[in-house]
Amino acid sequence: MQYHAEVTIELKSGMLDPEGTTIKRALGHLGYQTESVATAKKYMIELDAESAGSAKQMVDEMCQKLIANPIIHNYTIELGESK
Amino acid sequence: MQYHAEVTIELKSGMLDPEGTTIKRALGHLGYQTESVATAKKYMIELDAESAGSAKQMVDEMCQKLIANPIIHNYTIELGESK
Repeated sequence: MQYHAEVTIELKSGMLDPEGTTIKRALGHLGYQTESVATAKKYMIELDAESAGSAKQMVDEMCQKLIANPIIHNYTIELGESK
Repeated sequence: MQYHAEVTIELKSGMLDPEGTTIKRALGHLGYQTESVATAKKYMIELDAESAGSAKQMVDEMCQKLIANPIIHNYTIELGESK
């Protein structure tokens, strides 16, 4: 079965987000006032696995070993069957 | 009223995604076979607006003027009231 995983990597609270800060400032220069702008990264992964459980576990291991940095990132995984 | 917008910026189909390609290869070296890996960027924006409609329009303008590059990006906006 083929699965589609959406991994969202966010900075842990308290981590500086210079890209978000810069975009907030640039939006202000364009006349758009915002309370805050924060950035995150998203990875869409298509993979084959025997079950949703094993797909989720594989993606979780991918995050821990490569995609996320556990010191500074929180990550969430949304899994579905591929269309 | 304060609103929370989640903007997702994806590459248009056909655009090269070298970061996704590199991660797919690196995952392969770690023993994780994937069909595809694609990347996207997410922006979480808190803003004040008079209505959900005007908040959505403001965020749409922000995307067109600053956050997205319409030549290479598709973007989607999810809007909700801030907690």
